[in-house]
Amino acid sequence: MCRWLAYSGSPIRLEELLYRPRFSLIDQSLHSRMGVETTNGDGYGVGWYPVDGSPEPALIRGVGPAWNDANLREIARSISSPLFLAHIRASTGTPVQQTNCHPFRYANWLWVHNGSIREFARLKRDLVMAVDPKLYSSMAGSTDSEVMFYLALTYGLRDRPVAAVERMAGLVESTAREHGVPDPLQMTVATTDGDRTWCFRYSSERRSRTLFYSTAISALRTLYPDQKMLHGLSEETRLIVSEPLGELEGAWQPVPESSYGVIQKGDDELGSFEPSMP
Amino acid sequence: MCRWLAYSGSPIRLEELLYRPRFSLIDQSLHSRMGVETTNGDGYGVGWYPVDGSPEPALIRGVGPAWNDANLREIARSISSPLFLAHIRASTGTPVQQTNCHPFRYANWLWVHNGSIREFARLKRDLVMAVDPKLYSSMAGSTDSEVMFYLALTYGLRDRPVAAVERMAGLVESTAREHGVPDPLQMTVATTDGDRTWCFRYSSERRSRTLFYSTAISALRTLYPDQKMLHGLSEETRLIVSEPLGELEGAWQPVPESSYGVIQKGDDELGSFEPSMP
Amino acid sequence: MCRWLAYSGSPIRLEELLYRPRFSLIDQSLHSRMGVETTNGDGYGVGWYPVDGSPEPALIRGVGPAWNDANLREIARSISSPLFLAHIRASTGTPVQQTNCHPFRYANWLWVHNGSIREFARLKRDLVMAVDPKLYSSMAGSTDSEVMFYLALTYGLRDRPVAAVERMAGLVESTAREHGVPDPLQMTVATTDGDRTWCFRYSSERRSRTLFYSTAISALRTLYPDQKMLHGLSEETRLIVSEPLGELEGAWQPVPESSYGVIQKGDDELGSFEPSMP
Amino acid sequence: MCRWLAYSGSPIRLEELLYRPRFSLIDQSLHSRMGVETTNGDGYGVGWYPVDGSPEPALIRGVGPAWNDANLREIARSISSPLFLAHIRASTGTPVQQTNCHPFRYANWLWVHNGSIREFARLKRDLVMAVDPKLYSSMAGSTDSEVMFYLALTYGLRDRPVAAVERMAGLVESTAREHGVPDPLQMTVATTDGDRTWCFRYSSERRSRTLFYSTAISALRTLYPDQKMLHGLSEETRLIVSEPLGELEGAWQPVPESSYGVIQKGDDELGSFEPSMP
Repeated sequence: MCRWLAYSGSPIRLEELLYRPRFSLIDQSLHSRMGVETTNGDGYGVGWYPVDGSPEPALIRGVGPAWNDANLREIARSISSPLFLAHIRASTGTPVQQTNCHPFRYANWLWVHNGSIREFARLKRDLVMAVDPKLYSSMAGSTDSEVMFYLALTYGLRDRPVAAVERMAGLVESTAREHGVPDPLQMTVATTDGDRTWCFRYSSERRSRTLFYSTAISALRTLYPDQKMLHGLSEETRLIVSEPLGELEGAWQPVPESSYGVIQKGDDELGSFEPSMP
Repeated sequence: MCRWLAYSGSPIRLEELLYRPRFSLIDQSLHSRMGVETTNGDGYGVGWYPVDGSPEPALIRGVGPAWNDANLREIARSISSPLFLAHIRASTGTPVQQTNCHPFRYANWLWVHNGSIREFARLKRDLVMAVDPKLYSSMAGSTDSEVMFYLALTYGLRDRPVAAVERMAGLVESTAREHGVPDPLQMTVATTDGDRTWCFRYSSERRSRTLFYSTAISALRTLYPDQKMLHGLSEETRLIVSEPLGELEGAWQPVPESSYGVIQKGDDELGSFEPSMP
Repeated sequence: MCRWLAYSGSPIRLEELLYRPRFSLIDQSLHSRMGVETTNGDGYGVGWYPVDGSPEPALIRGVGPAWNDANLREIARSISSPLFLAHIRASTGTPVQQTNCHPFRYANWLWVHNGSIREFARLKRDLVMAVDPKLYSSMAGSTDSEVMFYLALTYGLRDRPVAAVERMAGLVESTAREHGVPDPLQMTVATTDGDRTWCFRYSSERRSRTLFYSTAISALRTLYPDQKMLHGLSEETRLIVSEPLGELEGAWQPVPESSYGVIQKGDDELGSFEPSMP
Repeated sequence: MCRWLAYSGSPIRLEELLYRPRFSLIDQSLHSRMGVETTNGDGYGVGWYPVDGSPEPALIRGVGPAWNDANLREIARSISSPLFLAHIRASTGTPVQQTNCHPFRYANWLWVHNGSIREFARLKRDLVMAVDPKLYSSMAGSTDSEVMFYLALTYGLRDRPVAAVERMAGLVESTAREHGVPDPLQMTVATTDGDRTWCFRYSSERRSRTLFYSTAISALRTLYPDQKMLHGLSEETRLIVSEPLGELEGAWQPVPESSYGVIQKGDDELGSFEPSMP
């Protein structure tokens, strides 16, 4: 059911997180330890913001497995970025195609999702019709994940992201109720505008897929004074991951059920997440 | 802007039409002579009905160019069929992906299209909303061609195909009028239920893409008594093509503007096509 | 490290073995239970002999994972064959590309392999130079598996298959000795000329990858009188598999270490396999 | 038969040459004006040296047509480089696969080629055997282009590039003579070590594929004082192309038959090219 990671902080090469760690994202494409599916070979994607601060992120997505993709390796080695989202896909039913790979991009926003909407085929028409008509033609694929993104955009993601995602969740749950579908929503989500990054962990059944964020760099340096890699990273550096990338004790904190987080300059935020009626 | 062919008659190997002729469909993928685009390398597809008469057609579609696809060649050499549609794609804007390749299939129906709906992105939401909600989730791609198919299904393709396609065209034209889009529809279409095959040639501007049907086999045998290939074919054998597959004089008749044809046992039909209000 | 199956007997649809069984080959592409690698997502291939008895097999190969390939599913549903080899790949180092997928085909012969040649990159030049110059340009890929096939062809596969494969194994082991590479060869192999099928299980270290053949149909019918599927199959029907396709007790016998088998009309053969000096 | 370009000079975004010009390389993939084949849809590749001066180039290659590749567009928009080679492929017989796409890379060297070796299948074994055994296992594909590169490496490309390529050409011609193949070699080649770039234009029949180099920037600025793009480019900036990227009069000079050029800091070189016996 997918794995993803979000990085924000000092510019680093993508390969540092995609390939280097013991349980890197690429490793997880072959042998995820915590996912519903161990294999995530139905595509991948990386969206990154340029080092020079331009607002629009670049995005590459592939339909093959991440683990044997030579181009992805080359790009990961070549690109440095201060903020990027990466995702590996295990399809929950929709076709394997580039337009169904995450991240999804709209203007300067990116979105990744792990989870699904139960019985999405039955609910899809109602959900899609709730998307702002002006945004409708920007949807290119057929996934629940993309529809969730466009509903969030419809409900004000660009102004008040948490409220927008809560309203999206509320719409999904009320639409599901109308169709008699129980516990419809399962999600861990990361979304970013290139400046701040929001993450969400929520499921209608209150047993959500795993999500972790990294301990503050200063704390990690105290724990691991010999870890050279930590020295080059700024205090702002943060990761959010579906499952930990390594075995460094104390490096990862679980994001609680029904909550959201905001990575930003200065203090980060953590709060409770509750679907609301749109 | 695509090329397609429809075959109905004695079972033949797919390669007889996909590869063998002087200007075979595969040849047209590289060097079409009559198409708006000379190269049709944005995917291909073949849907065929089994020799044993089972109702449901098989369907393979690929995103790469047809001319260098080794698997397509093998399949074309291996499969015999009494009725098949094949298509090579030149995208008019929507992504290159398997779900955007023709033929499209619904139950025992297949559909291919050459042409486009002008400013489809603006009209798409209204058109998609007009598709029967029960059919909505069966749409897998993002092309105008697929939406046209599902509108035709919505308007009774399975009962009265010509009327259904006329109503689909009528809806496209009236929707375009509402949005101020002139001459929206450009189409040659073939659709079949595995028994009869309908073809359509129409455009709002009354200058449609080319479409030809093959002369009756008996007439061809009289013209070309030495052509061995003709001897093995039944009287019922017919082809409909975007552009002729060969240079046999008199073998191809143009389908008139604003008309439809029906290939069936016994006499075929030819009639005029006029969009109607749905 | 790959999984494969070989079928010989009454014509059946490919999907009966590729998709239907509890642990079908497609299922093994995602979750192999006995392989060195659990995921075999680096490509797949099927080679089949036509029902009409034509000598040359058809061959389709894809670079993506088998489990999400829509075309493979369609083909498996459409094609019936009395003799076919299918393979799913987990690369042991060489690139993922169509020409590196099995089966390999030469004239009317097919070849699949699970295993590897240790330090193949060091031994490759010597091994390739031993291939008959007249066969050299027919090698299209870069795998050890393909080189093994062409060495076997060089040493008389078309006349005395067992001896040819023994000589190939002998060359691999002696070449490895020259380069100081221990225990070079790991192999289960199936090869067929469309009439008889040979299988081999051997490794230099005498701990070979798993290989099973199916119990005689008559014995299975006695064990399972209610299994309808067995009634339609002839006495000649046999499968050889890397790992069992189902849980039917007594349906699968392990092929012993260092041995070969021959599936043919009448009695099958089983014998010991010993590399010989070419 | 392929198109390629080589750029050396001020760092620019890859898209400036791959997409922007009137007859950009991507445009040439669909509608080449001067190539033997008008369509070059059998793959593409770009190798670029990083702005920071690291010696090893990055390399991405794809098997699909360049014109519809979304990832290539994203990468071209994201990457700046002072030196890069790009290539679009029209296969002359060998399979379409990533390992057969140019540029080829060895250590810090890149190589692109337009042309072919006549009857390569017959000559291949002799040519490959002449490659340095220590380099043999680095060859990953099956093209004549790659073999030419490795022969050049064998004959001292890293020390005396022109002499090495002359010896490679000499070997190809003498091997062809032995096999009775006339006029075997057709080539325009660019190769670079990340510092200097060599180009070659030669054919056994002395009628070579087209090749052009760009006029000096100072001369162009005099000719076109209003062309803003020229102002940002250093004097060292040079392009070598299979066919001109635009219609700027006087911007392109043909590389003469049987000659080589060297782009380097300070004065460039131009000299005559003559195959020699290795």
